[in-house]
Order: sequence, then structure tokens, then C-alpha cells
Amino acid sequence: MNDKELFVKMALNIWQGQVRAINHVLDKLSDEQLEKEVAPTRNRGIYLLGHLTAVHDLMLPLLRFEEAHYPYLHTAFVDAPDKAISMTPQVAQLRIEWKEVNEKLLFHFDKLPTNEWFTRHANISEEDFIEEPQRNRLNVLLGRAVHSSYHRGQLALLIRKN
Amino acid sequence: MNDKELFVKMALNIWQGQVRAINHVLDKLSDEQLEKEVAPTRNRGIYLLGHLTAVHDLMLPLLRFEEAHYPYLHTAFVDAPDKAISMTPQVAQLRIEWKEVNEKLLFHFDKLPTNEWFTRHANISEEDFIEEPQRNRLNVLLGRAVHSSYHRGQLALLIRKN
Repeated sequence: MNDKELFVKMALNIWQGQVRAINHVLDKLSDEQLEKEVAPTRNRGIYLLGHLTAVHDLMLPLLRFEEAHYPYLHTAFVDAPDKAISMTPQVAQLRIEWKEVNEKLLFHFDKLPTNEWFTRHANISEEDFIEEPQRNRLNVLLGRAVHSSYHRGQLALLIRKN
Repeated sequence: MNDKELFVKMALNIWQGQVRAINHVLDKLSDEQLEKEVAPTRNRGIYLLGHLTAVHDLMLPLLRFEEAHYPYLHTAFVDAPDKAISMTPQVAQLRIEWKEVNEKLLFHFDKLPTNEWFTRHANISEEDFIEEPQRNRLNVLLGRAVHSSYHRGQLALLIRKN
């Protein structure tokens, strides 16, 4: 295993660990619990699930894999705050889309050659990337793992204590 | 910049970004707000601050830098759940210790040669490390950045909305 392979392995382990941990939280929450606010006046669980799904969906173009699959989620769960849009999807539908978008990402991760992880993501130009080689695809993966952990900490508050 | 230098830069950027983001949340919270639960029946802000400080303090021995500075925090904020121990430190004191432990870590990070980041952390034997080279010091840094993001998401719930 060379240096780059090692680092990709570390980052993918962290990513996979986060997706698993969120799935673990979601498995413990009923659809009704996800309709509740994580704290008084704060985002509902369904909003956070939609937000995470939308942000992961946006990784598809950001990592230069393919177009986003669920643009409608971005309007409801990235551009708008919770409760701003009346027409939001059902929790059951979001659970399916969350699973699908993460599977789609994994499909691309598995195929991506190691060196390609260290090429630019879609939001930096080739010129700027020469100066800032840390703004690569692998950095997006790590940044989004950190982001998902942030909201996992909030979702976990919905789990009923014994 | 060689591959390893690039990875270390990426990981340190992520770490520093998390510490800055938590400081940003703490700056917005009064001591009184930190005494509140982040959600009904859940951990108080002070507990999360103590927990984060204790976990970062434990990185000092885990990264093989030096002994932990605040063992008393581990008893109150790692081994015990919130409200289990009556004698807990003041928020003002924890704010100082949080700052100090992160400065101490940075001091060591700055001195650590790049190659040393890819050596084992204290909780894995030299034999096992040969099989699992991803369990290195840099991986601890990334894992703890993800951990701190989890609790930052909870602390942020204490910020008063306008």
C-alpha cells in the first residue's frame, strides 16, 4: 500500500463509519420521532435527514461523478430552512433516497483510481488548484464526513431514552 | 509538497477548522446558557464542553506527546454521564482548560515531523500496526475532528435565535 492508497483508505473508513453511524441512529427512530424537533424551536429530524440526503446528493457533481439525482431536495433542505416550504416529502421516501444516494456515491468511490482522489473537485478551477492542491476530491469526502457527524449529533437527541 | 505533507496539511486544516468552529459557538454562549441542557433531559452545554476538553486532553498521551493534563476531567466528563457527579468545575474554568489543551496540542502538531504522523498511536501495538497502518496518529486527528463536530452540532442548539 503506497502513501496515497493509505490515505484514501483512512478517509473512506471515516466516511463509511459516519454513514453507518447515521444509519444506526435512523434505525432507532420511528417516522413519527423524525417528525419532531431535535430541540425546542429547532430543526425537525425529517429536515436533517432531507438536508443530509441533499448534501450527499450534491457530492455527485462536486466530485465530478455525475449530475445530482434529487434537485428537489436542494430547494427544500439546503436553500430553505425547516418549515419554510409546506410541500416536503414523506420520511419513508427520504429514508429510501438517503440510502440510494449513499449507494450511488459508494459505487463511484469503488471505481475511482487512487490518484483521481487527489485531483480537483468541481468548485475549484484548474489554475487555483495548482496553488491549493489540498482542495481535492478526498478533502470533500473528509469535509462531508465532518458535516454529517455534526447533524448526527443532533439527530441522536431524538432517540428515546429508556 | 510531497504526498504525506499534503495529507497532513489536509488533516490539520480540518482539525483547525473544527476547533475554530467550536470556539465560535462558545463565544456566542454565555456561561448561563452553557448550564442549560441542549435538549430536554439531554446533556448540558457544560458537560459537552468538559467532555470535549477531556477527550482532547486524552489525545496528548494517545498521540504519544505527553501525559494528560486534566485527569480530573476524565472522571467527570468521560467516565461519568452528565449530572452523575455533583462536584463539577465552573464553566469559566472549563473555557480556560479547553483553550489550553488545544494550544498544547497545536504546540506538538507544529513540532511533529511529517513522517511521524504516519506512525502508530498509543492504543495499538507495534505488531498490530504492521497489519493496520491506517491506525496512525493522523487518523486519530481526523477521528477526533469528526467527534468534535458531533458535539458542536449539539452545542449550537443552545445559541439563542433572534
